[in-house]
Amino acid sequence: MATEAVGIDIGGTNVKIGRVDSRGAVQARAQIAAPVALPGEEAIERIAQAAAPLMAERAPRRVGVGCAGLIDSHRGVVHTSPNLPRWRDLGLGDLLAARLGAVVAVTNDANAFALAEARLGAGRGYPVVVALTHGTGVGGAVVVAGRVFGGVHGFAGEIGHTSVQWDGPPCPCGNRGCLELFVGRRGIVAAYLERCDWRPGVPAHDLAGGRREALDPRVIAQAAHQGEVAARETFERVGTILGAALADVSNMLDPSIFVVGGGVSLAGDLVLEPARRALAERAMARGVTQAPIVPAALGFEAGLIGAALFGLAGDETEGEG
Amino acid sequence: MATEAVGIDIGGTNVKIGRVDSRGAVQARAQIAAPVALPGEEAIERIAQAAAPLMAERAPRRVGVGCAGLIDSHRGVVHTSPNLPRWRDLGLGDLLAARLGAVVAVTNDANAFALAEARLGAGRGYPVVVALTHGTGVGGAVVVAGRVFGGVHGFAGEIGHTSVQWDGPPCPCGNRGCLELFVGRRGIVAAYLERCDWRPGVPAHDLAGGRREALDPRVIAQAAHQGEVAARETFERVGTILGAALADVSNMLDPSIFVVGGGVSLAGDLVLEPARRALAERAMARGVTQAPIVPAALGFEAGLIGAALFGLAGDETEGEG
Repeated sequence: MATEAVGIDIGGTNVKIGRVDSRGAVQARAQIAAPVALPGEEAIERIAQAAAPLMAERAPRRVGVGCAGLIDSHRGVVHTSPNLPRWRDLGLGDLLAARLGAVVAVTNDANAFALAEARLGAGRGYPVVVALTHGTGVGGAVVVAGRVFGGVHGFAGEIGHTSVQWDGPPCPCGNRGCLELFVGRRGIVAAYLERCDWRPGVPAHDLAGGRREALDPRVIAQAAHQGEVAARETFERVGTILGAALADVSNMLDPSIFVVGGGVSLAGDLVLEPARRALAERAMARGVTQAPIVPAALGFEAGLIGAALFGLAGDETEGEG
Repeated sequence: MATEAVGIDIGGTNVKIGRVDSRGAVQARAQIAAPVALPGEEAIERIAQAAAPLMAERAPRRVGVGCAGLIDSHRGVVHTSPNLPRWRDLGLGDLLAARLGAVVAVTNDANAFALAEARLGAGRGYPVVVALTHGTGVGGAVVVAGRVFGGVHGFAGEIGHTSVQWDGPPCPCGNRGCLELFVGRRGIVAAYLERCDWRPGVPAHDLAGGRREALDPRVIAQAAHQGEVAARETFERVGTILGAALADVSNMLDPSIFVVGGGVSLAGDLVLEPARRALAERAMARGVTQAPIVPAALGFEAGLIGAALFGLAGDETEGEG
């Protein structure tokens, strides 16, 4: 049984690589720019070159990969990835296994994040953990008894693409009114711009140097902390919609806890307090029980650590197929 | 190991009781009017009297109960039930176990329906089954590898009370814009009345004898089959909203199949075809895979059979807590 694995976290900007032990400690690191311009096989060769020096010398060599997109975990296939538009039905698992002489497990990046937080982070000890990455987009995963519930193919957990408005605006994913449209980065900026008074002297305006294109959730959160009403209202709305979506998840899955990470979650209680109120008002089991909503605990390497935990599990598949 | 159990299906009108074998065959039956007016313990005594003659003579005596409402399956407690408003935090499992000298498992009625359909009905052989009861209300459950996914307390599966419009009309459950408000019995009648031309000679009008209060989904379905445009549009809308909700479930749980039962499902493809189209347009995994949406197969005794299957499982709990 392996006690270390190499985790590979493929993001839109960088690929983070680390040798991680079973307690989640990162023993060695490497990083390369995300090979977004390369075709699939060349991109994988680039990643393999960076990972090779971190591989254990003795078998079993284990590698876990987390990647945004529609990932078939059973077959190690990346069907589509928003970060790597040239990847399409790419057999990432097999290619990397052959190149590195390792057992390779491939999963969605939010699944990796969730596994790390559920086993070692804020969800530790809870039987049913729903974890969300709340940033530019909204990803998620459900971890039951320390194992990601992947559904039949490993596609499960896409809470960001559940609809909060069935006839709402179209989402690039194909659905309408997706949660991500309302509470992801662009949704937050749009909600702020709808209600703000954009002129000098207004906190978000000045923090962004008067440039609308410099507005992002971090700037709006700062403005909210400085007391700007439009900024506070923006997060009130975002948190309420997030909490409404979590009430749906609560009614559907009856989880122990919600763990929220990602860039927007750094706004903390600005988002989480209205989310908790909405959950408390809307969930069917209110009065009997309520799952807490807590910030993630493992920081920016959670995805890397979770990928390695997947790698360690090896042939323990996550799907139910 | 028991090979038969007594199933008890507590509805709003009747309580159906049956001795059922492990293949789902009902060997003996009893039925009483639902004791809606009685306080909890007296109601249970009434049910126990009806069930006693069907009990096996030899241990282990197994009983499974399906009941609408918020049911804690681990503890056998009915927190609330819309059918039996006098039941509140009632220890149904313990009371019935003491009275009948049996091991008693208690679950939500939709869980019982889903278990029967997943093990013996339309979902047989599929690893992840999402089953819905689509009638006056909308219930549901997720069955993974032949076992209901109950979440921490057994409250999971309430797809009827997931929101399709986060700021929509309030639902008695506490949430807003619940699926059930749009596609349950009242929602269907309201959607029809909004678009119909209510006068003699119009099919639904005449089928209902000119009485609005006699309108129900069955009548509207008949009118649709007779070609009434407003009736067809009503089911088109209902099916589309149902399919949108199933796309959310698909994105969240990646199931193998959706099984739909209940009174409204008797409208068949009037509802299911637009639901299939909405699912095909909206689910993230479209193009790679799509879960079929099929009618339930076991008929009106599915809930009774499923309750008995829960009883047979005995101490095999359904929750994850």
